[in-house]
Amino acid sequence: MKVVIVGGVAGGASAAARLRRLDERAEIVVYERGEHVSFANCGLPYHVGGVIPRRDALLLQTPHSLKARFNLDVRVRHEVVGIHPQARRITVRNLATGEILDDTYDALILSPGARPIIPPLPGVQDSRVHTLRSIADMDRIMAAVDAGATRAAVLGGGYIGVEMAENLAARGLQVSLVEQAPQVLTFLDPDMAAFAHHALRAHGVELRLGERAAELQPMDTGLRVVLANGTSLEVDLLVLAVGVTPETQLARDAGLKIGKTGGIVVDERMRTSDPFIFAVGDAVEVYHLVARNRTRIPLAGPANRQGRIAANVICGVDSRYGDTQGTGIIKVFDTVCAATGAPSFMLRALGIPFRTVTIHAESHASYYPDSHPVHLKLLYSTKDGTLLGAQACGKDGVDKRIDVLATAIRHNANVYDLEDYELAYAPPFGSAKDPVNLAAFVAVNDLRGLAPVVDVDGLDAELARGALVLDVRTDKERAKGAMGGAVGIPVDELRGRLGELPRDRTIVVCCAVGKRAHVAQRILLQNGFRALNLTGGYTSYAMAKAPTMASSL
Amino acid sequence: MKVVIVGGVAGGASAAARLRRLDERAEIVVYERGEHVSFANCGLPYHVGGVIPRRDALLLQTPHSLKARFNLDVRVRHEVVGIHPQARRITVRNLATGEILDDTYDALILSPGARPIIPPLPGVQDSRVHTLRSIADMDRIMAAVDAGATRAAVLGGGYIGVEMAENLAARGLQVSLVEQAPQVLTFLDPDMAAFAHHALRAHGVELRLGERAAELQPMDTGLRVVLANGTSLEVDLLVLAVGVTPETQLARDAGLKIGKTGGIVVDERMRTSDPFIFAVGDAVEVYHLVARNRTRIPLAGPANRQGRIAANVICGVDSRYGDTQGTGIIKVFDTVCAATGAPSFMLRALGIPFRTVTIHAESHASYYPDSHPVHLKLLYSTKDGTLLGAQACGKDGVDKRIDVLATAIRHNANVYDLEDYELAYAPPFGSAKDPVNLAAFVAVNDLRGLAPVVDVDGLDAELARGALVLDVRTDKERAKGAMGGAVGIPVDELRGRLGELPRDRTIVVCCAVGKRAHVAQRILLQNGFRALNLTGGYTSYAMAKAPTMASSL
Repeated sequence: MKVVIVGGVAGGASAAARLRRLDERAEIVVYERGEHVSFANCGLPYHVGGVIPRRDALLLQTPHSLKARFNLDVRVRHEVVGIHPQARRITVRNLATGEILDDTYDALILSPGARPIIPPLPGVQDSRVHTLRSIADMDRIMAAVDAGATRAAVLGGGYIGVEMAENLAARGLQVSLVEQAPQVLTFLDPDMAAFAHHALRAHGVELRLGERAAELQPMDTGLRVVLANGTSLEVDLLVLAVGVTPETQLARDAGLKIGKTGGIVVDERMRTSDPFIFAVGDAVEVYHLVARNRTRIPLAGPANRQGRIAANVICGVDSRYGDTQGTGIIKVFDTVCAATGAPSFMLRALGIPFRTVTIHAESHASYYPDSHPVHLKLLYSTKDGTLLGAQACGKDGVDKRIDVLATAIRHNANVYDLEDYELAYAPPFGSAKDPVNLAAFVAVNDLRGLAPVVDVDGLDAELARGALVLDVRTDKERAKGAMGGAVGIPVDELRGRLGELPRDRTIVVCCAVGKRAHVAQRILLQNGFRALNLTGGYTSYAMAKAPTMASSL
Repeated sequence: MKVVIVGGVAGGASAAARLRRLDERAEIVVYERGEHVSFANCGLPYHVGGVIPRRDALLLQTPHSLKARFNLDVRVRHEVVGIHPQARRITVRNLATGEILDDTYDALILSPGARPIIPPLPGVQDSRVHTLRSIADMDRIMAAVDAGATRAAVLGGGYIGVEMAENLAARGLQVSLVEQAPQVLTFLDPDMAAFAHHALRAHGVELRLGERAAELQPMDTGLRVVLANGTSLEVDLLVLAVGVTPETQLARDAGLKIGKTGGIVVDERMRTSDPFIFAVGDAVEVYHLVARNRTRIPLAGPANRQGRIAANVICGVDSRYGDTQGTGIIKVFDTVCAATGAPSFMLRALGIPFRTVTIHAESHASYYPDSHPVHLKLLYSTKDGTLLGAQACGKDGVDKRIDVLATAIRHNANVYDLEDYELAYAPPFGSAKDPVNLAAFVAVNDLRGLAPVVDVDGLDAELARGALVLDVRTDKERAKGAMGGAVGIPVDELRGRLGELPRDRTIVVCCAVGKRAHVAQRILLQNGFRALNLTGGYTSYAMAKAPTMASSL
């Protein structure tokens, strides 16, 4: 059997190694267009920033090491330019010599990846404009920084854009991040993305949200980035990070089916519309576990697992790709932001009725040193409490809670299940009631009608209907910042001061994080008031409504 | 409605607060024998060690604060000495005055906890002998240390014993830990407990494993701990941490059903054999999710959740206690040890056929700074791959993996499910193939017969049957330590040196961690050899067979 793999990074490299382990006798040829196979693409921004000091730490394998260990025939700087499915042949260009070669396959795995989108901006071809996908891209950005660039702009606030903003700032550059949406990291709801905004601003990154570049003008002193609102920036270095587009030309030309999302269509065994051709990684469409539709999720984890599965199937090991659920995480200076499942905007677009709760709980027992808040938001089905998404931000323990909740979503868990999770507790690691349990308690209380919540997105509608906000924090806390129009009664005084509250209006109870408000809400409900808990409290309110206030929290 | 709660810590305190939130009008009385309610019992060792410098950080609530917030009637230093179920009355002794009081209840919640076992050693009543359960216990140990104790012994290597050894060592004491079993932390298999042994020894704690105290002799210069093997230690301070026994006398006297494990029998709604009496926390028997039998698991997480559930049930909110699965974690100096589900000894005792795999993978991308190995062991059903237990040790990321696997066990996951888990990946947090995925890959390869493993427990039997060990590490690695009798062929040379290996013997392939051995094993299997992978490699072997060698790893 002869297997040819197009693309030797992530999915392609995983497939090749797995193929060899499954079949010692197969002929396995990997064609990689770039100079490097199996390099650490997720590490590129961190080498720019100096966090990963050694460039060669990113070069995980070489054709030589893959030959020795896996008996693979790896040909870098070879681009597959044509596939002939009927004949099971491919045409390959040696990029070093220009020579055109022919090759055959019994099975073909496409792992072409995706390429950065280059927006059609006037001036975009300027040499000071960069993207970041390959080692060569990284080298060019490093060279610009080393040559003395002091001002940078990043267009796009996704994973790469935010990581580049952080790492360029780490090198001492003045960085502006321009994002067309009103927030960065759109896998997070706005109130959660605000934690990333706060971290970026606190570390000197200028955020230009809701703005977009209109033109790039080369100047003697730098590159002028003219924004659509008429303002401009002058920089020495511009990184385009507005997204990626799947590399599907080869697949299209071969007549393979391309989906509505623009990715190569594959079945759950990673097989394309041609039975002898498989495709994996950033170029394929996947099925979204929560959204239950086709999507593209260009991340390393799925790519690697898909490569392994394609190899399994080719070697007769029954294997299917589980759906993708969009689990993602990013470090934003000293803050961590992570999510799994669907964010609010996606659920709204799909018409799935959902509710949200947010808590701000300590990463571990608060009496043990160095605990930090974990800001945790659950999104769950109004109908049956099925967990649809989870988002978390904080300094410590964010990855853990999201991984637990990603596992929960994998098993179609509901918020009732989450109440019972028995997670590892000792004071340095968690609390007897873990944040995951606590968030579930809040959600279950909400679903059961014991303590209905309103989230920051629903607050305006309640206020418009005449709701009164009751702030049950102490006077001292309220003095530092509070919602306009709120009535203040500290929770511990509430039982004696019920007479001060109206019985004909919904009372939205607010405290710092939602905990005291819960006690207050229960007192009110049992005394005949109609009361909602503002989930996440003033912390979430401040983050959602006035992100720039965040620094006062 | 009047609810009386016996015991105001953990489960009792949780029940009281939840009761009030559910029922603003209930009369809620908490009787606590000790001086303190709702204190941070899990934090006690760390105040001794100076990690938690402020004593009052451990006092989470006071009767006053609970009155203000929850309108609770909390009476400390009041011991309930009798229950009269027919009359729904109790007899209470005021420990301050000696006065005997009578009280009534509509529902009674018992949260009496457990008390440290005092082994019947001659001399055990010496004032230098301590246990650690209450704030007062802690104060006495602190006083002994402050008074100049320099030598301490801890009897018992469970959670409290190990935490006390660490924290006494942190105060500069010379500490010996005496444990009757051949290992500490019996929720871990011996090869995993070895990581705790290594950490304890590396930080100066003298381990006396497989030894037990026979007698305590008061001396002018200290307390002599005479061991059964005839050796002895002289110390200024002895901590007994050989386990706890549930406080069930009150329940027994009231005629409540006590189970075979010695705990109070409750149903899934935490109701005892009397319909008006509930019990929660360390004093009750629970059902073990994996073992499917009754057991006692005296930990804070279950206690808190049980208290909440008892309150729910009393207030008519349908709620059941999910089974306990034995999730636990402990910091041992710079090492973290954690587990969930059943350890090997328990599965063997239950006659459940199981297999194990162990990996040693990096906590996050190895090219990103500060990654550390996560030593991860999975125990799974031979029959269908159901995950039965997981154990992990390391410096970073241990809690995360165990929490993911605890969630998996909660959902009755098998190792096939684990292959597909989509966990949060970016270089600072994990790898594109998380250790959880990697361990699952190994387990699935084993179950499918693609790459059968032998674990350190099964190695001797294979060797006795004539197996040959093939070490595929480099010569340089092998020179630092290797198994006697092993043949050495580096993996990258194996394809060319197959002729050196016998075809009539099972070949157990070994490398540092099991990864290269997997490649080698697959080469051998496909060339007609019978081969097993020593799971966990030489690292696990060294830990299991020669724990003292661990420092060379």
